[in-house]
Amino acid sequence: MGDSNRRSALNRRSFLVGGAALTGGAAVAGGAAGWGVGGRTATARTPDRDAIANSRAVGAATEPFHGDRQSGITTAPQAHAAYVAFDLRDGLRRTDLIGVLRAWTQDAARLTQGRGGLADLQHELAEGPSRLTVTIGFGPELLGKIGLGDRTPEWLQPLPDFPQIDRLEDRWSGGDLLLQVCADDPLTVAHSARILSSGVRDAVLQRWAQRGFRRAVGTDPSGQTQRNLFGQIDGTANPSPADADYDQLLYSDGADRRWMRGGTSLVLRRIRMTMDTWEEIERSSRELTIGRKLDSGAPLTGTTEHDPADFEAIDQTGLTVIPTESHIARARPRVRAETILRRPYNYDDIPDPGQISNSGLLFASYQADPVRQFVPIQQRLAEQDMLNTWTVPIGSAVFAIPPGCHEGGYVGESALEG
Amino acid sequence: MGDSNRRSALNRRSFLVGGAALTGGAAVAGGAAGWGVGGRTATARTPDRDAIANSRAVGAATEPFHGDRQSGITTAPQAHAAYVAFDLRDGLRRTDLIGVLRAWTQDAARLTQGRGGLADLQHELAEGPSRLTVTIGFGPELLGKIGLGDRTPEWLQPLPDFPQIDRLEDRWSGGDLLLQVCADDPLTVAHSARILSSGVRDAVLQRWAQRGFRRAVGTDPSGQTQRNLFGQIDGTANPSPADADYDQLLYSDGADRRWMRGGTSLVLRRIRMTMDTWEEIERSSRELTIGRKLDSGAPLTGTTEHDPADFEAIDQTGLTVIPTESHIARARPRVRAETILRRPYNYDDIPDPGQISNSGLLFASYQADPVRQFVPIQQRLAEQDMLNTWTVPIGSAVFAIPPGCHEGGYVGESALEG
Ligand code: HEM
Ligand code: HEM
Repeated sequence: MGDSNRRSALNRRSFLVGGAALTGGAAVAGGAAGWGVGGRTATARTPDRDAIANSRAVGAATEPFHGDRQSGITTAPQAHAAYVAFDLRDGLRRTDLIGVLRAWTQDAARLTQGRGGLADLQHELAEGPSRLTVTIGFGPELLGKIGLGDRTPEWLQPLPDFPQIDRLEDRWSGGDLLLQVCADDPLTVAHSARILSSGVRDAVLQRWAQRGFRRAVGTDPSGQTQRNLFGQIDGTANPSPADADYDQLLYSDGADRRWMRGGTSLVLRRIRMTMDTWEEIERSSRELTIGRKLDSGAPLTGTTEHDPADFEAIDQTGLTVIPTESHIARARPRVRAETILRRPYNYDDIPDPGQISNSGLLFASYQADPVRQFVPIQQRLAEQDMLNTWTVPIGSAVFAIPPGCHEGGYVGESALEG
Repeated sequence: MGDSNRRSALNRRSFLVGGAALTGGAAVAGGAAGWGVGGRTATARTPDRDAIANSRAVGAATEPFHGDRQSGITTAPQAHAAYVAFDLRDGLRRTDLIGVLRAWTQDAARLTQGRGGLADLQHELAEGPSRLTVTIGFGPELLGKIGLGDRTPEWLQPLPDFPQIDRLEDRWSGGDLLLQVCADDPLTVAHSARILSSGVRDAVLQRWAQRGFRRAVGTDPSGQTQRNLFGQIDGTANPSPADADYDQLLYSDGADRRWMRGGTSLVLRRIRMTMDTWEEIERSSRELTIGRKLDSGAPLTGTTEHDPADFEAIDQTGLTVIPTESHIARARPRVRAETILRRPYNYDDIPDPGQISNSGLLFASYQADPVRQFVPIQQRLAEQDMLNTWTVPIGSAVFAIPPGCHEGGYVGESALEG
């Protein structure tokens, strides 16, 4: 897909392309008055900001660690995340890997419940777990490196190339092992990632680390959805635990590899968002690009966020209201079995000198089988997606997320024992 | 000060250096039980975590923008901060600079109150101001570059070199203009810093950006103090608004330059903290290094955080309980006029491949006159401070923080008009 195609998609609706930037600007005051400061119409039930600040209510909350499935997958997304990937050092064996996984399991079980890691002399930093979750993943080459290559699920391999869009950098891609560390407090994430990473450095080499955020607790009642740095509500069309096929979409039934039963997969794509050029286009063009409204997140054919999108509806010019080249028209599953659970975080790292921003999305999705569920969507988006003009994938990694473990066990046990 | 001195300072107390790391580890469970999960003994007044998550109480809170003084100085520190420095492009004149300052003032006045910036097409991102403050500063060369060098306060100059400790990098140092952007929500900080920076890029070149954090709202009731990545309570010995000389310590009375009346200065030092070696020492050594206890932050001669430190008290070995080489013994003001207001943030940026951490402190202090107040402290610490073994200053900048402005005016007006 060339640039000219994308531009023409925008130009087809001439009413959109006109209108000076200031028109959009003038609309701002009215829109914002909807809430913001005006929104402080506290009802009796709304907690008071100062009471929150004087409490540990956010810090004291915990998520379970033990269970049939790992936490951090369907857990309501916390405000902060670190993803850290490691490579197994040369010559290590199954028992060494078991040592790493046991250490992580023990420390994660403690840290998530507000206790310091075993070798952590600084337990004060663990005292506010803030819904900490620690999720462990296996990269494509891990099991092969310890002589258990036949236990690697078929789908556990790097994604195919998407040469139309990919500008992948080694330093954000791949990895033998993954830690996903999420919590509502940034210090908890920093400390937990540090403790878990430093304890195992004799066995593994840190390959990359990425950090992301969503809105702070108490700023955005919508919970599962959030705004990304383009201002879009991101996370609307996700499967729901109420769906009959939710577990089937998300978790392995063991047909891939028996040890994977109750596990899932994570695709992590680091996608740069080019703020400079995004800011050059109108609000209406921004909405056509996605196929949804900026303010409410409603589809262009609806009025509230969760209205179903009508991809057939036609406007007076005879074109579909939601452009066929828009992000949601291209991304929406063609068959139900293509459905993925997106759990994205924003990133906003230190820009190089002379640059204003270094930001984008840590696109993270969970699905039972990435080859069947994720790849067809990514393939379609690589071929055509109006959003591609402003987004560049610069990192890519796939991990198997083993099932959870119970007291006394360790994450990954089902793959490594027997 | 050589390494051997520091080591001997630790070794003088032989009872401290013994004891395996596991001793410290074993103490963890007991200590943490004090609260953490156990701490969820909610009283009727403690807000409920889910009620907070379903509210906008944190997001809707605002700080004033207009006033005799800028906000963001004595404002209770927000959870997230961005510091962004800019250089004036070559050949720009007083009127161009006024344009930048007027644009920043107008946008900051709007953004802090929950309205989008004037040219911001994405007003939704501004709707949860989360106590946003925007604080503007002038670097040492700014006024000289537009022919007003005689208005530069004498103290507005880079800090002297501290060759014993400094490993300064250009990319974290200096700058003609500063934006300090703080809010309780990371998306608000990212968006506000972006909008303010991109709007003025024709006039200024971004020189560096640094981002920091403290604990999230609702995790740490202590407010002004916080824990840094070494686990220390940081911010205890700070002047208080109740002190008779608070204003005098913090704000210019106009004797330096008339336009500075009601303004102050910011010293920003980027200080790397070497986690790897810090983690090798015992809790008791860590406490001697600072002169305070890790759990409560109390001085080694006291029991609660705000107990006054007794620098004369002697232990049974005949040495001062608080080592004379400890951070607080060296840092404490020798005369009251040396007092500064510290407002530090932690940073935890992306480590280089193979490294585990890239973290430290954005040491930020406000004072009426950095040469009289800050430099003597830094001089003493450079000469001797047990903490120096684990900290490395890699960035340094000084800014004049002009007084605030009122409706219709702009920050910096008093320096640029007339
Ligand atoms: C920076 C990159 C991206 C941005 C900013 C972005 C943004 C969005 C937004 C705003 C929506 C509409 C609201 C919603 O349903 O959440 C959306 C929907 C969606 N996106 Fe993305 N997205 C990005 C990358 C991707 C990638 C890489 C994939 C998968 C390969 C993907 C798959 C989807 C899917 C499946 C939907 C739901 C479509 C539907 O059923 O309506 N997105 N995205
Ligand atoms: C990474 C570097 C640093 C760390 C980790 C650190 C940490 C601490 C800690 C834990 C305390 C005791 C608690 C408190 O009163 O806040 C403290 C006190 C203090 N620090 Fe630092 N500090 C650092 C750098 C600096 C620098 C660069 C200065 C100034 C040049 C400074 C000046 C002070 C002062 C004035 C006190 C209060 C001393 C007293 O009156 O008791 N610190 N610092």
